[in-house]
Amino acid sequence: MAKKKYVYFFSAKKTDGSAKLRDLLGGKGANLAEMSSLGLPVPPGFTITTEACIEYLKTGDWPTGLLEEVESNLKAVEKLMGREFGNPNNPLLFSVRSGAKFSMPGMMDTVLNLGLNDNTVEGIARMFNDRRFAMDSYRRFITMFSDVVMGIPKEHFDEKFDAMKEKVGAKVDTDLDEKALEEIVKQFKQVYKKHKKSDFPTEPMEQLKLGIEAVFKSWNTNRAKTYRRLNNLPDNLGTGVNVQVMVFGNLNENSATGVAFTRDPGNGEKRFFGEYLVKAQGEDVVAGIRTPRPINKAAKTSDDLPSLEEVMPGIYKDLVTIYKNLEKHYRDMQDIEFTIEDGKLYILQTRNGKRTAPAAVKIAVDMVKEKLISKEEAIMRVDPASIDQLLHPQMVIGQTLRILGKGLPASPGAGVGKIVLNADAAEEAAEKGEKVVLVRLETSPEDIGGMDAAQGILTARGGMTSHAAVVARGMGKPCVAGCGNLSIDEKKKIIKFDDITLKVGDYISINGNSGNIFEGEAKLVEPKLAGEFGEFMKWSDEFRKINVRTNADTPHDSKVARNFGAEGIGLCRTEHMFFGEDRITSVREMILSKTETERRKALKKLLPMQRKDFFQIFKAMDGLPVTIRLLDPPLHEFLPHTDKEDKEVSEQMGVSVELLKKRVQELKEFNPMLGHRGCRLGITYPEIYEMQVTAIFEAAIKAKQAGIKVYPEIMIPLVGHYKEFDILKEMTIRIGTELMKKAGVDIKYMVGTMIEIPRAALTADEIAREAEFFSFGTNDLTQMGFGFSRDDAGAFLGNYVKSGILPKDPFQVLDQDGIGQLVKMGIEKGRSTRPELKVGICGEHGGEPSSVEFCHRIGMNYVSCSPFRVPIARLAAAQAALKDK
Amino acid sequence: MAKKKYVYFFSAKKTDGSAKLRDLLGGKGANLAEMSSLGLPVPPGFTITTEACIEYLKTGDWPTGLLEEVESNLKAVEKLMGREFGNPNNPLLFSVRSGAKFSMPGMMDTVLNLGLNDNTVEGIARMFNDRRFAMDSYRRFITMFSDVVMGIPKEHFDEKFDAMKEKVGAKVDTDLDEKALEEIVKQFKQVYKKHKKSDFPTEPMEQLKLGIEAVFKSWNTNRAKTYRRLNNLPDNLGTGVNVQVMVFGNLNENSATGVAFTRDPGNGEKRFFGEYLVKAQGEDVVAGIRTPRPINKAAKTSDDLPSLEEVMPGIYKDLVTIYKNLEKHYRDMQDIEFTIEDGKLYILQTRNGKRTAPAAVKIAVDMVKEKLISKEEAIMRVDPASIDQLLHPQMVIGQTLRILGKGLPASPGAGVGKIVLNADAAEEAAEKGEKVVLVRLETSPEDIGGMDAAQGILTARGGMTSHAAVVARGMGKPCVAGCGNLSIDEKKKIIKFDDITLKVGDYISINGNSGNIFEGEAKLVEPKLAGEFGEFMKWSDEFRKINVRTNADTPHDSKVARNFGAEGIGLCRTEHMFFGEDRITSVREMILSKTETERRKALKKLLPMQRKDFFQIFKAMDGLPVTIRLLDPPLHEFLPHTDKEDKEVSEQMGVSVELLKKRVQELKEFNPMLGHRGCRLGITYPEIYEMQVTAIFEAAIKAKQAGIKVYPEIMIPLVGHYKEFDILKEMTIRIGTELMKKAGVDIKYMVGTMIEIPRAALTADEIAREAEFFSFGTNDLTQMGFGFSRDDAGAFLGNYVKSGILPKDPFQVLDQDGIGQLVKMGIEKGRSTRPELKVGICGEHGGEPSSVEFCHRIGMNYVSCSPFRVPIARLAAAQAALKDK
Repeated sequence: MAKKKYVYFFSAKKTDGSAKLRDLLGGKGANLAEMSSLGLPVPPGFTITTEACIEYLKTGDWPTGLLEEVESNLKAVEKLMGREFGNPNNPLLFSVRSGAKFSMPGMMDTVLNLGLNDNTVEGIARMFNDRRFAMDSYRRFITMFSDVVMGIPKEHFDEKFDAMKEKVGAKVDTDLDEKALEEIVKQFKQVYKKHKKSDFPTEPMEQLKLGIEAVFKSWNTNRAKTYRRLNNLPDNLGTGVNVQVMVFGNLNENSATGVAFTRDPGNGEKRFFGEYLVKAQGEDVVAGIRTPRPINKAAKTSDDLPSLEEVMPGIYKDLVTIYKNLEKHYRDMQDIEFTIEDGKLYILQTRNGKRTAPAAVKIAVDMVKEKLISKEEAIMRVDPASIDQLLHPQMVIGQTLRILGKGLPASPGAGVGKIVLNADAAEEAAEKGEKVVLVRLETSPEDIGGMDAAQGILTARGGMTSHAAVVARGMGKPCVAGCGNLSIDEKKKIIKFDDITLKVGDYISINGNSGNIFEGEAKLVEPKLAGEFGEFMKWSDEFRKINVRTNADTPHDSKVARNFGAEGIGLCRTEHMFFGEDRITSVREMILSKTETERRKALKKLLPMQRKDFFQIFKAMDGLPVTIRLLDPPLHEFLPHTDKEDKEVSEQMGVSVELLKKRVQELKEFNPMLGHRGCRLGITYPEIYEMQVTAIFEAAIKAKQAGIKVYPEIMIPLVGHYKEFDILKEMTIRIGTELMKKAGVDIKYMVGTMIEIPRAALTADEIAREAEFFSFGTNDLTQMGFGFSRDDAGAFLGNYVKSGILPKDPFQVLDQDGIGQLVKMGIEKGRSTRPELKVGICGEHGGEPSSVEFCHRIGMNYVSCSPFRVPIARLAAAQAALKDK
Repeated sequence: MAKKKYVYFFSAKKTDGSAKLRDLLGGKGANLAEMSSLGLPVPPGFTITTEACIEYLKTGDWPTGLLEEVESNLKAVEKLMGREFGNPNNPLLFSVRSGAKFSMPGMMDTVLNLGLNDNTVEGIARMFNDRRFAMDSYRRFITMFSDVVMGIPKEHFDEKFDAMKEKVGAKVDTDLDEKALEEIVKQFKQVYKKHKKSDFPTEPMEQLKLGIEAVFKSWNTNRAKTYRRLNNLPDNLGTGVNVQVMVFGNLNENSATGVAFTRDPGNGEKRFFGEYLVKAQGEDVVAGIRTPRPINKAAKTSDDLPSLEEVMPGIYKDLVTIYKNLEKHYRDMQDIEFTIEDGKLYILQTRNGKRTAPAAVKIAVDMVKEKLISKEEAIMRVDPASIDQLLHPQMVIGQTLRILGKGLPASPGAGVGKIVLNADAAEEAAEKGEKVVLVRLETSPEDIGGMDAAQGILTARGGMTSHAAVVARGMGKPCVAGCGNLSIDEKKKIIKFDDITLKVGDYISINGNSGNIFEGEAKLVEPKLAGEFGEFMKWSDEFRKINVRTNADTPHDSKVARNFGAEGIGLCRTEHMFFGEDRITSVREMILSKTETERRKALKKLLPMQRKDFFQIFKAMDGLPVTIRLLDPPLHEFLPHTDKEDKEVSEQMGVSVELLKKRVQELKEFNPMLGHRGCRLGITYPEIYEMQVTAIFEAAIKAKQAGIKVYPEIMIPLVGHYKEFDILKEMTIRIGTELMKKAGVDIKYMVGTMIEIPRAALTADEIAREAEFFSFGTNDLTQMGFGFSRDDAGAFLGNYVKSGILPKDPFQVLDQDGIGQLVKMGIEKGRSTRPELKVGICGEHGGEPSSVEFCHRIGMNYVSCSPFRVPIARLAAAQAALKDK
């Protein structure tokens, strides 16, 4: 086996690597090599490979040969620069930086000025003829090295530094003179000794070795591991180490350091954009100690800050030439770090710049138009999950608000309004034109009207898939769920966040993207569905192979989704219609009936209402298929839950509270999730499904007669055995045939089922003999397949994800390894008996990008998701198709 | 295609069929053919095939050619007998009987004397020189034909008959003279006309055709369908029809009819056994109008009934010769029907006799010893499910008791005792030596002591797998669960069955085999584990391929199971130990702890108790493996559920009722089945499992030091993801290694898991990388795979089974089509990464014969079931192995 090369040299004259070696050199190292090859003014240096890092982490030792390679590369740099590392007469200093394949917070960032000690500092002083500058660099080095390499908390140094500033009456760091800095260096060395029980390492080569090892080790800090877990990055990549000759932005007034973006990372506009600081090193910009200045006149917001364009016009011109070349070369928006040393420009880093979702879309579209990239590349450049931001109001950046608490970011967007504690109050306020936020312990189906009327929903209990979260996402309402420090006192009409008390009517603001809750009225910015976004989404449709439908229960939601590009309804839940104020009484009558005759009487009242519901939805979805699921939840969900409600309902319905309570008790279940619901109800009480099927066919007939194109797909829920389906399909066909014959109208319809019970997936071949379509209900499939109740899993699921037992919350991201097997098996078995079987998904996962990709890969015909996730699913589906190529 | 033969002739001279054609001719027809061939005195006739029946049921018409075949066979019989069907001068009469492959109640049984009308009846009168006899046959024929062929309820005829008896002052049927019978015939014909609006069919050929069709149709009566469903018989077999020359047991005092068994069907003793009636037809014996007489002196119980042996010694001698030949020929105990016409013996039927379980075992063992059958045949002759009867006390047959109600036969055996309404009362009474039956709405884990103390358990709620049912079966206690008409008033200390009220202290008797509940003290017979049974079970072990273990939580259960042949413990549930009065307080302390330190303190108190539990079990199972499952149920199961209990516990523990209620509320779950339990608890609160693992190892070390051979298998419950298992296995090994090292003792142990979550089966390959054994928890696997909560499914599951949606209750009989796939997949995947993986089952199904056969077939190493089902599982496993050959 050939000896592994662990170190790659880069300089204007000779460069070993290139941008292609990202895996091996890390992003930073690869780009330093690439820029060096391009002839950009990059200070020379070398990159230690990620393989060396991995090897080191495996054995705890330097891989054989690495030290020798480092030493020979060091020599090469010394020769190139005509200076020597550690030589007091002609010293050379280095920066040491980490650089993994993916940019990653939590890893060791940077040590600057490495190579300084009591001797070389004097050499630097002589070289730049500035002993104050040399001392300033020295104290910076000791702080950084002690902090990031040796793990001594930075505050111990800051303490001494601030004391000195106070002592000599210095306002800012630059007020400190050479004397003071020399004293500080002494103090810093003592701080080091106190913590480490040994002297500060003065040997430059030792400093370098320690610095390199610190970078290696930083790959496995907890923060880095967490970041990788959260971003689905593998643990075995390792980081590169970049050792580069120091240039000094802090040398004199003719020196500076800065960062720049080739386009605006906030909104994507094509303008050069950046900040710089005179007489500063990189960390000064990041630390925010001094306010940076804009890079050019165009970016100036105030007259008192001279821009780089004004101060150093020649250098600015050079920078503009470089940024244009870099963007063209990399074919993407670049984030550039530069340093000016005594009037000479150096580029220290370039990388693809991070950007907001609106910027990502605009840049992608613009670059296609500029013929810089293809449409396919444009599609792949935008993270589908991020475009959620484009669809909801957001909080204005920069405002100061008092944080009250934090819950789960359950539904995106920001909401501002007065506190109300129940759904009725929300509806009343909305009628008066007031904006409110509905604050509840948790929500239940009866709260839907109030949720719809509110600007946002905040709950004290429940997770990402609690009722509040699911319904809010469906409505596109912001929601923060499960806020742990929130308590509600309905009697006193107050809510508390720990010790902070707010009353009903006080303003509150919630951020459904972050989960934060603020006091008062936050300023919001409405989303602009800019023209580029529409264009971008249309492009994505060109590549997409599977359809995107929506889960919608109302004509309003249907319209919203259609505007977002939904190609039909994949799940229309009929039970939500049962909660309307005009219906719930009849529903309860039906449930409290003792005989089938009584039950049929109550159902007769519901029939015209359901028929109207369906007609409206067919109308909104003219020309598109509509999948209607027959009644699914257990009956007790429709009965009252509190004594107060019991009393109200008892009066309304003219039955005794006792009888009501008895019936509620009878219907109560130990595990309602696994109880008497779905098609089990349809088989026990066929009259309920008969009413619903009648309403569907009557509505479809009426719609067709009115010139609307209707394609109803009737879906039987919770089928576990093919006989359940066969019985109910027969019933459906019988009723449909009769009604169509009577009306003389022919409706094209399908009867299919939800695959949401593990056994249904296992016996999908039997079910598909009669079922014309499958829709995977991955919420329930996940619940039953994992044995996790969504409502209860909160007690351990968070901990499971945090500790890495599960890579993700399986209710948000489909568990492809386990539950995915059931889905795949269900499709394969289903198509084994019915090759033309139409297959979709209607669980929450239908709008989650990695799950959409999975659905594409295993051959689904469509995904269905809540209206506000339709664009996300469209983009994710397009990316899945492009990845397939 | 060759024309199908639909009719098979049988007579002493020429016979088409044989016993081998059981599928085609039905059991009765095949045996009539066989006996004819053997030269036994069988009246001639012919059998219509089951294929003809199936064809008729499919088309609703007689298959082509059938009528012609019937006619030609009829001619052949006429020729043989020298008499003619429908010829008044020389009439021939027939019986028409059904006969399917399997004996089956609910099908049309018999029409006798077919061919009688006003003309032929006179011919019969002349032929036998007895007009009274002819008229008696005629009225019998009209009744039977009207009832079984035409569907006119028999009571309409009985009414007229009884009126006539009263009119003429007749005590018994034989008191009616010719005149009265002639009058009755007239009246019967009017009854017929009134119901059918047409005259009674007088044409013999029409009578025959209607009779044959009635037999065909009777295959599909509801009762027959239900019977097939309950006995797992296919619906597509059809029945044969046997048309046979009539012989008359009712002709004169020299005539008789009877049934006989070649061995005692009640206890299996080898003695000829039977009953007969002089001057009677078959239905008289069955109807019980007259008391039959014993067939021989040996069977006589009273002097006033002369036996056949005494009355007709010659015929009896013939019968003995025949029975011996038949048993030898068929190599099984025979149930024989015979008729004597004017001193001549006819054999009308022989079949393998039904027998009780004790008889089945004894006969099988005896026949092996008599070298009549092989051991293998003996094993296959006993229904494994039936031997449950051999293990529990049973009610004495024949006693008169008032039935109070009926529930589910939840645990076999009969129990008699005074009514008590709570567990404490049961324990107190038991201490005083009183026998009690514990009557509860439903039972909970706290009732275990009381259940153990009671003679039986009766609950108003709950199904076959309710707590009461499962625990009672485990204990081998009789239990009737879910008695719908039972209500309990604990305050008034009474219980009600509809309107019948009983008080605490009244005697009650329950029959766990039938589900019946009786007032008062029923007489019981204790089971005799006769020597033959032990021998039989040992034989079965010779053929068995898989091991049989037991589910046992106590040393007592372990010993019981070991006596029943258990080869280890497959499931020892540690939570049952937590309910002991001395432990529950510490358990509650542990749950109410706010910090890990508090929790550890409480657990420390539990450690010595658990250690003792395990030591005792290891001792009872010396030399055999013991699988111990770590804590499984959610914590709230251990907390109090009522206000009264809250108060008690609050006082006991010195915490406020409020705090207690709050903690109970916090721990409450929407779907506890899918909640925070099993290994999820072990991961959230590692200290609990640490305590249990410590207790196991310490007990094992102590046991080994005491010379006991211990093989602990530590089982992690509810694993859904391999990482859960890996974490807990590591913990187990760490603790075990440390303790063994400290003690200087080496224990051979395994760490494995329960496969009870669908996802675990789907990812069994990943789990088996670390898991050393799998035990399929098919109860939970069925719950989650079907989406059925055992506690709630009662609302629809009964109906599902009744209406044929599901063939069986999947909690009793493993659903091989669906859940079985998960089990099979789990084994295959598990062994793909660990070929030596040990696999068992510990759900309720481990003691159900068809499920045991499945477990054998898919390659399990063992099944585990409750102690009282161990013999059943042993036998079922032996049969499975024999079927495999």
